[in-house]
Amino acid sequence: MKDLTVTEEDRRLCSVHLSKDERSVVIIDQTQLPNREIWLELRTAKDFYDAIKRLAVRGAPAIGICAGYAVYILAQQVGTEDPGAFLAEMEKAGEYLVSSRPTAVNLSWAVRRMLGVIRGAAGCPVPEILRLLRQESIAIHDEDIRMCFRISEYGLSLVRPGDGILTHCNAGPLATSKYGTAIGPVLLGKERGIDFRVFSDETRPLLQGARLTSYELQRAGVDVTLICDNMASIVMKNGWVQACFVGCDRIAANGDFANKIGTSGVAILAKHYEIPFYTLGPASTIDMECPTGADIRIEQRDGEEIKNMWYREPMALPEVKCYNPAFDVTDHELLTAIVTDRGIVYPPFDQNLKTLFADKEVH
Amino acid sequence: MKDLTVTEEDRRLCSVHLSKDERSVVIIDQTQLPNREIWLELRTAKDFYDAIKRLAVRGAPAIGICAGYAVYILAQQVGTEDPGAFLAEMEKAGEYLVSSRPTAVNLSWAVRRMLGVIRGAAGCPVPEILRLLRQESIAIHDEDIRMCFRISEYGLSLVRPGDGILTHCNAGPLATSKYGTAIGPVLLGKERGIDFRVFSDETRPLLQGARLTSYELQRAGVDVTLICDNMASIVMKNGWVQACFVGCDRIAANGDFANKIGTSGVAILAKHYEIPFYTLGPASTIDMECPTGADIRIEQRDGEEIKNMWYREPMALPEVKCYNPAFDVTDHELLTAIVTDRGIVYPPFDQNLKTLFADKEVH
Repeated sequence: MKDLTVTEEDRRLCSVHLSKDERSVVIIDQTQLPNREIWLELRTAKDFYDAIKRLAVRGAPAIGICAGYAVYILAQQVGTEDPGAFLAEMEKAGEYLVSSRPTAVNLSWAVRRMLGVIRGAAGCPVPEILRLLRQESIAIHDEDIRMCFRISEYGLSLVRPGDGILTHCNAGPLATSKYGTAIGPVLLGKERGIDFRVFSDETRPLLQGARLTSYELQRAGVDVTLICDNMASIVMKNGWVQACFVGCDRIAANGDFANKIGTSGVAILAKHYEIPFYTLGPASTIDMECPTGADIRIEQRDGEEIKNMWYREPMALPEVKCYNPAFDVTDHELLTAIVTDRGIVYPPFDQNLKTLFADKEVH
Repeated sequence: MKDLTVTEEDRRLCSVHLSKDERSVVIIDQTQLPNREIWLELRTAKDFYDAIKRLAVRGAPAIGICAGYAVYILAQQVGTEDPGAFLAEMEKAGEYLVSSRPTAVNLSWAVRRMLGVIRGAAGCPVPEILRLLRQESIAIHDEDIRMCFRISEYGLSLVRPGDGILTHCNAGPLATSKYGTAIGPVLLGKERGIDFRVFSDETRPLLQGARLTSYELQRAGVDVTLICDNMASIVMKNGWVQACFVGCDRIAANGDFANKIGTSGVAILAKHYEIPFYTLGPASTIDMECPTGADIRIEQRDGEEIKNMWYREPMALPEVKCYNPAFDVTDHELLTAIVTDRGIVYPPFDQNLKTLFADKEVH
């Protein structure tokens, strides 16, 4: 596959990008969507910390991109010409950034990568280090755009113009860059004049499908219909869905994968109605050290998200117990294929995922 | 099966009942649950009309019971001793009551039944007609309590103490009387010291599971856990569910049945995880004139219920389309058995439903 040439325009259209004067990072405040489109300029360490902590920027790749740029912006503000003192200050800043959301793997990964540049440039004058940091932060962003493009291109090969596509949660441009992953094929298709009809599960309890996915698709001019999660069955029965595209948080070596709660239910429905079911994500999501889905620990969240959040008043008695897992694991047997930036992986997954990491491109 | 002897206490514990002085009907205002337990006394025709229209009383059987009592209460207020004028006034009152929710079958059925009593008592003095109306309205209520009891008794025979039971929407005492239908086995079990663990789907978009089912069960001292609809899959996968009990709005002659949106999805999950899936309802829900589920028309509701209702602010862009069917049809092949007040019906449903209406008791 030919790689995408990323332009400054591509970057600037992303939900996280460098400002024109490169003195700040511009992000759309995702907590305000869909009712208010507020772009924030992040300049200080505290700006970045707060934005990540309160989920103004969310989605693993978007957080990574933001953190990369954050290190570049903060590096400009260090008041020393001494490389040793410079590194020490940036290490402190990096530590502070990472503490905003300690479980976000892409956050610490991006900070580590940027600090690696400073360490690798030991002996260079500070302006040269700044140049290298700028280059690296843009590289992180561009790599993500290209990764999304490749996933989208592979995904697009799996559907036909006019197909109905059902998606769950949000794995679009807000969470990543440019095309997104799960809805990347739809947005890439749109760019090429190929139209799809998308059904977006609202995705309780946090409503990412309603607040973010239907927002992104509507803004992009895609034919999108919002449904409650429990309507996926009737939509499939109506014959309106030709493929399911969902994201993934972690893929085990046997193809089992964790994604937003409710994903496994969609997969079971798709199997029942004989509809292909795909997960789309970067090859970096595949954890070959994790043998099966049973080895993936599921985060439990506060039941107040189910009973109280968003609402004008509580929707259940305070004493009613809730069970609120953030993710579920979808069995690999329910999965038609895994769509990665390195190619499409079909069953048997245990074998073919090994091949994926041996070869550069499988499909 | 031995029939339940219904006491005045049984009636008075229902969400709809006659007041002590028999001058009004007492109902719990279901629109205020779970946050406020407000009991209303309905006396005038307008009281009844409003309560039914704004869903303060909801659930087909509960509406029927309320309408029966309404006719009795309003009959007491007719200022004539002339049986002809009496009937004419009551016919007008009945028409007004029915217009409060024209699609509610049990509403018009109960009003018709009560007016039939007046017509059948032609020539009787008004006090005698009032006595007969009182008797008939109590009979409607008692029949429902006995019907729920029989369904609950049959349902209870299908589960074992300690079982986990998953339910969707609300088919409990609020919608019916005393035990309810779908959760009747749980409440009857509770009365006998048999405990179950219930998982209540919140049931988007109207949240009947959160607002009503989890409320009823919590108040009854049942171990209930509220989940989002999309969590049913992981709860089943965890091995926590031994049976699914759901209500039904209409059962076709082949066993296909319509129920609250999302029911068919639960049935497909149950089949995948090899968990028995039952629908519980009165035999009167079975429509032998309706050959299959394809002949059941599905009501479409306003998308604002998905995007705006309950919320502090909208959860999707105003221009985003929604698909909001009120019900879906569950294929009979997904159904383990139909639990009715006349017995439990197993596959092949087309044959065995015919037998049900031929015999008095099949099981």
